[in-house]
Amino acid sequence: MARELRIGMVGSGYIARAHVYGYRTMPSVFPEAAALPRLEMIADLDEALAASARSRFGFARHSGDWRRLIEDSAVDIVDICFPSVMHREVALAAIAAGKHVYCEKPVGLSGSEVSEIAAAAARAGVKSLVGYSYLRNPLIGFARKLIQEGAIGEIVHFRGAHNEDYMADPAVPFVWRCDPKIAGEAGALGDLGSHIVSIARHLAGEIRAVCGQARTVIKERPVAAGSREMRQVGNDDEAQFLIEFANGATGHIESSRIATGSRMDITYEITGTHGAIQFDGERMNEIKLFSDRDPVDRQGFRTIYAGPTHPPYGNFLPAPGHGLGFNDHKVIEAFELMQLVSLGEPAMPDLAEAARIGQVLDAVLRSSAERCWITVA
Amino acid sequence: MARELRIGMVGSGYIARAHVYGYRTMPSVFPEAAALPRLEMIADLDEALAASARSRFGFARHSGDWRRLIEDSAVDIVDICFPSVMHREVALAAIAAGKHVYCEKPVGLSGSEVSEIAAAAARAGVKSLVGYSYLRNPLIGFARKLIQEGAIGEIVHFRGAHNEDYMADPAVPFVWRCDPKIAGEAGALGDLGSHIVSIARHLAGEIRAVCGQARTVIKERPVAAGSREMRQVGNDDEAQFLIEFANGATGHIESSRIATGSRMDITYEITGTHGAIQFDGERMNEIKLFSDRDPVDRQGFRTIYAGPTHPPYGNFLPAPGHGLGFNDHKVIEAFELMQLVSLGEPAMPDLAEAARIGQVLDAVLRSSAERCWITVA
Amino acid sequence: MARELRIGMVGSGYIARAHVYGYRTMPSVFPEAAALPRLEMIADLDEALAASARSRFGFARHSGDWRRLIEDSAVDIVDICFPSVMHREVALAAIAAGKHVYCEKPVGLSGSEVSEIAAAAARAGVKSLVGYSYLRNPLIGFARKLIQEGAIGEIVHFRGAHNEDYMADPAVPFVWRCDPKIAGEAGALGDLGSHIVSIARHLAGEIRAVCGQARTVIKERPVAAGSREMRQVGNDDEAQFLIEFANGATGHIESSRIATGSRMDITYEITGTHGAIQFDGERMNEIKLFSDRDPVDRQGFRTIYAGPTHPPYGNFLPAPGHGLGFNDHKVIEAFELMQLVSLGEPAMPDLAEAARIGQVLDAVLRSSAERCWITVA
Amino acid sequence: MARELRIGMVGSGYIARAHVYGYRTMPSVFPEAAALPRLEMIADLDEALAASARSRFGFARHSGDWRRLIEDSAVDIVDICFPSVMHREVALAAIAAGKHVYCEKPVGLSGSEVSEIAAAAARAGVKSLVGYSYLRNPLIGFARKLIQEGAIGEIVHFRGAHNEDYMADPAVPFVWRCDPKIAGEAGALGDLGSHIVSIARHLAGEIRAVCGQARTVIKERPVAAGSREMRQVGNDDEAQFLIEFANGATGHIESSRIATGSRMDITYEITGTHGAIQFDGERMNEIKLFSDRDPVDRQGFRTIYAGPTHPPYGNFLPAPGHGLGFNDHKVIEAFELMQLVSLGEPAMPDLAEAARIGQVLDAVLRSSAERCWITVA
Repeated sequence: MARELRIGMVGSGYIARAHVYGYRTMPSVFPEAAALPRLEMIADLDEALAASARSRFGFARHSGDWRRLIEDSAVDIVDICFPSVMHREVALAAIAAGKHVYCEKPVGLSGSEVSEIAAAAARAGVKSLVGYSYLRNPLIGFARKLIQEGAIGEIVHFRGAHNEDYMADPAVPFVWRCDPKIAGEAGALGDLGSHIVSIARHLAGEIRAVCGQARTVIKERPVAAGSREMRQVGNDDEAQFLIEFANGATGHIESSRIATGSRMDITYEITGTHGAIQFDGERMNEIKLFSDRDPVDRQGFRTIYAGPTHPPYGNFLPAPGHGLGFNDHKVIEAFELMQLVSLGEPAMPDLAEAARIGQVLDAVLRSSAERCWITVA
Repeated sequence: MARELRIGMVGSGYIARAHVYGYRTMPSVFPEAAALPRLEMIADLDEALAASARSRFGFARHSGDWRRLIEDSAVDIVDICFPSVMHREVALAAIAAGKHVYCEKPVGLSGSEVSEIAAAAARAGVKSLVGYSYLRNPLIGFARKLIQEGAIGEIVHFRGAHNEDYMADPAVPFVWRCDPKIAGEAGALGDLGSHIVSIARHLAGEIRAVCGQARTVIKERPVAAGSREMRQVGNDDEAQFLIEFANGATGHIESSRIATGSRMDITYEITGTHGAIQFDGERMNEIKLFSDRDPVDRQGFRTIYAGPTHPPYGNFLPAPGHGLGFNDHKVIEAFELMQLVSLGEPAMPDLAEAARIGQVLDAVLRSSAERCWITVA
Repeated sequence: MARELRIGMVGSGYIARAHVYGYRTMPSVFPEAAALPRLEMIADLDEALAASARSRFGFARHSGDWRRLIEDSAVDIVDICFPSVMHREVALAAIAAGKHVYCEKPVGLSGSEVSEIAAAAARAGVKSLVGYSYLRNPLIGFARKLIQEGAIGEIVHFRGAHNEDYMADPAVPFVWRCDPKIAGEAGALGDLGSHIVSIARHLAGEIRAVCGQARTVIKERPVAAGSREMRQVGNDDEAQFLIEFANGATGHIESSRIATGSRMDITYEITGTHGAIQFDGERMNEIKLFSDRDPVDRQGFRTIYAGPTHPPYGNFLPAPGHGLGFNDHKVIEAFELMQLVSLGEPAMPDLAEAARIGQVLDAVLRSSAERCWITVA
Repeated sequence: MARELRIGMVGSGYIARAHVYGYRTMPSVFPEAAALPRLEMIADLDEALAASARSRFGFARHSGDWRRLIEDSAVDIVDICFPSVMHREVALAAIAAGKHVYCEKPVGLSGSEVSEIAAAAARAGVKSLVGYSYLRNPLIGFARKLIQEGAIGEIVHFRGAHNEDYMADPAVPFVWRCDPKIAGEAGALGDLGSHIVSIARHLAGEIRAVCGQARTVIKERPVAAGSREMRQVGNDDEAQFLIEFANGATGHIESSRIATGSRMDITYEITGTHGAIQFDGERMNEIKLFSDRDPVDRQGFRTIYAGPTHPPYGNFLPAPGHGLGFNDHKVIEAFELMQLVSLGEPAMPDLAEAARIGQVLDAVLRSSAERCWITVA
């Protein structure tokens, strides 16, 4: 019988719900798990919010004070789903209490804040996992395997984007994401760009230097839907940057929250000396591979649908092409969290990796301000 | 607090697992549900299988005798996941015991067998739901809405397919699906063709007559992987048929389990007098719509990604393009089951509709044998 | 210095213009040609039409009487671009005069009419070529090569269509194509279906039997744009049929001139025991190939762009992916005509092949009328 | 009867052949042309080359000395198809002789060289046209019309690329394109990048500043196929740069000649405040348009196939979806040349525009060397 790991969740918004989806679904998908999550306790900003979430999500207990949750001896893992502004305080407290930390991204308001948290976790020896969901896609693991096996040769160029259009309409009101004090200095860059940076690092390696630009296109937004009162947007709507990778490859990344028509364009193309790989998040169950080792008259990008040969797809479905959904990323993440904490199996990204991602974003913002290349710390 | 409906599951194979995925995940996705499933009891062919499934799936009790489950007063809904050969006996017993029936497809070994079960359910007044998963795709509901609103005008032609390649390799051994006594006279036609027929009826309406051909391409298969002993395949590897719909439209449907390269090609194109709709199951989160009301110079199929404007997608995810997976079909199905039984909200397809689907398949087989058009009963 | 072959063209409409495009462009594309076309004479229904076409197209002479052209000793090849109703009379006269015949499709009003012309050509020993343009696409030659080399194993199934929407709007007036006495009994089936039949035979072989349906959806049309006077449409708007190939494969073909949203959907998918090939005429410069010999985890349809390794693409362009256009089919056709007549190099389809295509269409119409399978003559 | 304009062509390689394709085919495609090209004279580096080209291409006369062609009074237009290194000398001589100039791109070895030529042409009052072929695609004109009509609102971002893989293999020998003294300092940037810059300027407007990087990935190549003797490559294999447009939009452009798997990836996506446009040169007959004015539940990129509503497509073909080819660009270019010279109808890009394109490339190279943003001259 698998051991139980007791989850203490802080926050109860959209992403909290996706975590619950992961916890509840994981046991039937991963019968081989070394541990199972137990929904022990949930905390939110007040008693009423927490009580409502407890019943909706099926937690055993709740609290209107997140500090009580952290101090609770029946909690093994603190799962942080609060807005970014709260991450530092909650995470440091959880680490101080010796809890393992499972934190949503972006972990802090800046890369240096994440570094501080990561250092604390390292000193305390607690385990950590950060919710860069897209890294859980079986096809990311497959892309990495292809690259490591040399299927595309040496990497020459990486082009990535994470564009959405959720704020393309100027009538969309000011939300916390537009406030650098709550969401961070990096707007679209932090919310979306951090995802594609996590993939770039996972597949193409260390980023040595960047040169970029970030800008706020829609300078002010209504304070509420339909209101005439306007509030100034405090971080970027779009950002883009050139990249020098440590291995010599070049790259480009862009992120936008106002890219009209882009619903979920987390895309990348990695070109190597002998092949190339393409991925588009709107079609998350397929990946394209080109190999110059095919006979010349029949070379072409082949469209590969995810299947049981791309672990852990086979845990979900017995045949290829049937498709995973976005929430399944969180099912896999819950499994990796269980294995990490119970067996010490490495899971990525941890807080240290999240700090390195944050340092790339910091460098982009500095580059944009100084209009020159910046070496990543 | 939502009422509980107690599930008694019969069978514990692959599809049973997908049902459990649905039951477990449903409550966090559909907080508005009028009832929640309780995993009361699971039965399988023997005690050991049932006990293993009980612990793996999280049921409260188990039994090695499915008849005991059906007679158990703590079971509200009998969920039938056995192979088709057992459906009739289990379903009739469940209906006789006054239980509601949730049954996997194909419901019986032939259309007439399904009709018999449907008639019994009607007489007993129990509710029923059949697991034609693809009908749960939010984009199917959207396609139906578009058609009903007249977005493509009058339907002129329907072209559909459900092709896979899971038995394309002649070295794949004989399995129960190849045995008409266990899987039914309709092979690929029953396993896959029934799905696309369910969609054709849902979107294009009653099928009046068919003319088709069904054939076994790989006549015999090894009795086990690597064996030299061969066994004759007893039903079709591929089938196709022309259609006359009651509304005058024409159509064509094909299904194959040996369509090399087709992983999950459940596809359809519906052409109307003013537009057309295209869908491909390998890209289950998108649908294509053409409208001749667009200005001539900018007419074209538009690729629409599923989103919150296509219910119940919004229950899963707050933004378009993030994608549902195959298993999410079963989450929706579990919700519809709860609403059906607790509130009497109509859910499709019920056993009566499954019988009509079965009659289409019967007609195709008869048409293939007699080499002529057959009017559907 | 290449020999000259003197062209006598009969007709000066749209397709005549495409032939001229071919003749004029061919010499610079195919410097290796054994002969070059000389635009000797053009005839049309009256003097004025012919004179205008002569100057527009660059012919040396013209005539208002096509019989004079046929009798002219300076004409080597009679190029027939008249409407189908005139093909028989012109072709038989040309053959009787010992001219080689280059004829547009469909060659006659019925398969038996084409057979009669083909028999006359055979008796007279003249050479013939029929304008089934799509067979000139370099990727058709490549598909045939792949099949012959066994790249997809034995052919199991062929699915083809040629759908367009040029008459989808009921307000489109009656045109000669709607009149069986001028265009033939086969409407969309003759205009479009004949093309995809030519491809089916080229790639999948002899068609043994068919079972189909053909129907007129828009029963009557205005006699002219905007007119209230209506005229009855005399042939099919759409047709479809099941196929038994001589090699045992099955198939399905459909054709429609009212397929809203289909601009140039000449499409086919050929599935074999070890792979599959897909083509879509709206993307005429690419073809998709699946091979089950690729490693399982990286199997998928690869998108191959036409290039110099797919002859005669290299005659047009030095690099892949740059793309040929529809008119380039006619450039290739002109070259094949030159080689056929000057060197006797076989070119397909000739009149005999066109007769076999016509017999398939005849069988479909008979099958539609008799509602049963018909063996192709 | 249309006037004749006498062409004097300098050079007889691949691109010269494409020009001839254009000249020969144009008259039958554009019967409305105000002038027709007459292939008066061709010159190449020696008598033999020129004589061979004369007969192959169908010119009336030839010369082994291009200066004699320029001085010939029977030549109206000098068509320059020599390698870039020769452009300046030939163009200045032609301009001095009062000839109109039709020149292939890139016009000079650097932007300042092009400026010099453009200034001479302006002083002399001769007309000029530069062979940026892709601007002739009817869908480019359509994209420009859409933008000007406000179909996508204000332009926010432009992402473009022109990637090919013709030199991806390190075994491909050193060719003149690798030699900055013959091909120019800009390698892939000049050969390919100039094309996508021409499109960026055409659709998104003036480029104010750039920040980029250019590098040679394959440092040396064999002097000939199979040789062990290596020669150093003198210009970039790939280049990319960030863009600030004069209208405030941002952008990114990349170009590579070693992008494994990219056959003809001239692609762009233009995102505006109310829509977006996507184009991929490998599918040159389609364009994608997104509009946020569509109802929310049916928004999506629509795939529009080129057709008669996108001039001058209708000159080639009467129905949409049939497709133009790369060489048809040159047919349109030949027509525009005729109208430019005979009627003075503006045609783009002229030498002045080519100079501005060249200045962008110059700025990219300077930015790459100085590692900072450069304002375009």
